[in-house]
Amino acid sequence: MSILTDTARERMVRAKDASRQVGLLTDAAKAALLDAIAARIEADTADIVAANAEDLARGRADGLSAGLLDRLALDEARVHALAVAVRDVARLPDPVGRVLDERTLLNGIRLQKVSVPFGVVGSIYEARPNVTVDIAALALRAGNAVVLRGGSAASGTNAALVRAMRGALAGAGVDPEAIQTVDDFGRDGARELMQARGLVDVLVPRGSAQLIETVVTESQVPVIETGAGVVHVVLDSSAPLEWARDIVVNGKVQRPSVCNAVETVLVLRDAADRLIPPVAAALQEAGVTIHGDAAVQALVAGVVPATDADWATEHMSLDLSMRVVDDLDEALDHIRTYSTHHTESIVTADEARAERFLAEVDSAVVMANASTRFTDGGQFGFGAEVGISTQKLHARGPMGLPELTSTKWLARGTGQIRP
Amino acid sequence: MSILTDTARERMVRAKDASRQVGLLTDAAKAALLDAIAARIEADTADIVAANAEDLARGRADGLSAGLLDRLALDEARVHALAVAVRDVARLPDPVGRVLDERTLLNGIRLQKVSVPFGVVGSIYEARPNVTVDIAALALRAGNAVVLRGGSAASGTNAALVRAMRGALAGAGVDPEAIQTVDDFGRDGARELMQARGLVDVLVPRGSAQLIETVVTESQVPVIETGAGVVHVVLDSSAPLEWARDIVVNGKVQRPSVCNAVETVLVLRDAADRLIPPVAAALQEAGVTIHGDAAVQALVAGVVPATDADWATEHMSLDLSMRVVDDLDEALDHIRTYSTHHTESIVTADEARAERFLAEVDSAVVMANASTRFTDGGQFGFGAEVGISTQKLHARGPMGLPELTSTKWLARGTGQIRP
Repeated sequence: MSILTDTARERMVRAKDASRQVGLLTDAAKAALLDAIAARIEADTADIVAANAEDLARGRADGLSAGLLDRLALDEARVHALAVAVRDVARLPDPVGRVLDERTLLNGIRLQKVSVPFGVVGSIYEARPNVTVDIAALALRAGNAVVLRGGSAASGTNAALVRAMRGALAGAGVDPEAIQTVDDFGRDGARELMQARGLVDVLVPRGSAQLIETVVTESQVPVIETGAGVVHVVLDSSAPLEWARDIVVNGKVQRPSVCNAVETVLVLRDAADRLIPPVAAALQEAGVTIHGDAAVQALVAGVVPATDADWATEHMSLDLSMRVVDDLDEALDHIRTYSTHHTESIVTADEARAERFLAEVDSAVVMANASTRFTDGGQFGFGAEVGISTQKLHARGPMGLPELTSTKWLARGTGQIRP
Repeated sequence: MSILTDTARERMVRAKDASRQVGLLTDAAKAALLDAIAARIEADTADIVAANAEDLARGRADGLSAGLLDRLALDEARVHALAVAVRDVARLPDPVGRVLDERTLLNGIRLQKVSVPFGVVGSIYEARPNVTVDIAALALRAGNAVVLRGGSAASGTNAALVRAMRGALAGAGVDPEAIQTVDDFGRDGARELMQARGLVDVLVPRGSAQLIETVVTESQVPVIETGAGVVHVVLDSSAPLEWARDIVVNGKVQRPSVCNAVETVLVLRDAADRLIPPVAAALQEAGVTIHGDAAVQALVAGVVPATDADWATEHMSLDLSMRVVDDLDEALDHIRTYSTHHTESIVTADEARAERFLAEVDSAVVMANASTRFTDGGQFGFGAEVGISTQKLHARGPMGLPELTSTKWLARGTGQIRP
């Protein structure tokens, strides 16, 4: 069937059919398949870079920002890096077939709970062609088919990458329909993907807070919500200055545009005089603009007055909100009001307060005396990261390959019936 | 604040606030709380039965069926049974605080993944007042607050039960706002519950396929889909007659109105002559009406011709669809087309075929040589059952208390930053 005459739904039906074959592949077969994909991406480098050049030219004509154009751009080195990442995923342990629970009932029935592929994983994301390869490789490694909907700005690049990956599947004797794109249907493709209950088993949006919000509210397919991080660091009364300064500066400056970067620092009043001047000086030296409340403004020159909106803002830039709170209760109240439940950290020498913070803060990752930048699948030792879940269902925090699997119960009996 | 003047949303905000206290209760405190609820329900028996009598009178006037009236009815014995069930839940192990993963990073940060309460569990269900107590007890045992929306037919009974349970909370020094009902807002209560993203963490619908479909498609709160079961038994070429007969009859007859009852039997052609006559005779003797294809009709008298609709029907009665298939492939195709992914079982003496069936069937529970009636939290040894999930996200198959928890990562460091 020509790619030009079918519908988005037909493609998803074919992905579902292909998922049966992919779901039964052995560990070795899946690893070999990913190696074949990596090789084919490298072999197709010229095609991919040429398609990308057209996307870039269109993006420049459409006035895309320099940041977006940089995310969109693929040169030979970046294509090579994509292939290397696929080979890394190939080397990860198979998440399918793990026995998660096992019990023999009194009547002799042997029960096993085993990990199985979801079936079909969908992803809606923005103009980053690396996500196309990344999600497809992770989904396949976990035995799933995948349906992709990338941003229109990268549609030519994505098509070239999907062509390469499908070619590798066909070459390995695997149904190429296991990788689908619905990019060419524009917004309708995204809409059909969100309505594909029964064909698509889980949808992972990746991109802006706006995109994720749209998918979470509109999708009838179960969603794993990733993303937005209004991340807090609390500097407790007893916080050692060096830890406080290092953790705040590292959390804000090391990579300001990512979701685990610090957005708001809350300082306990009885430590404000001791901690705020040196921490603020280190931040300002690193080029950070501090948005502070009146107490912070009184201690530091060059502070922008914080507005209510600042507390709810994920700056994604060298801007940081800072507030003095009366005590740990007020800090916890502030976090409850403004946190996106991604990551929060307390800096303290008081173990009881650290444990209270760890117990009471309702976020995917809660830290004591560590940089929030550690909330990351790679840092956690997962080898790869599907995203960082900020929801409570199924997966929470950094997601590795096991989070791309479901489970089923197997029951082996010898004719048992229920009395 | 009077229960008559607030809004559904205000109640959910109060549930969210109360969930903080409930989430930090110790194992012993939660068990004691449930014992207090059981005692209060018993003490309030007269009130509850009186409220139920009014619901029943209204139901009779409204022409409810005898079956619905029976589900709705509570007498002293049934109220006592509710209290006993709550005490059983109190005795279950605490699902909160389990360490599910633990790793120390090279830099010395100690990571722990621990089970935590969801926060607020919502439930939308139909006219069975026992669900009111059941879900509230399970949610509280797992450290959650709960927002309930039962059917309007049981609203008086539900209000009496909620009053009793809230009274027990207050008596135990726990914020009674941890149990809320939005029954008195009618359909608006259900709608607000489905839109309460950020206040309600997970929604568990219980009831008809229609109700579950509505919640799954309309809810913006993450849903755990429970329920509908078009359950298949395959009789393989080598199926021992005794196992085949026992498993089919037990699966259909023991309790026809439940989701794990058998709806369709698929018989391999080369076993049809041997198996169908005696299995059909046993079914007919037990009062079952067989809806059969032409091959079944040719072998058995008194068979109703099966329609296409029969294959997709959850009969919930002493009706059973039966079809002859050419081979295991055709059986698997049939199951893929019509299964609701609840439970399927094969009866066979051929281990390779059993293992193929277990591997390839994509259902929450897949069995070889056992009655599908074993798909049940109690039978699985969970001590209690929240429902049977037919979705792949978060929980699949019978759900126990652990499925009413989420997780969070705790990170304990000594000033580590990311290089």
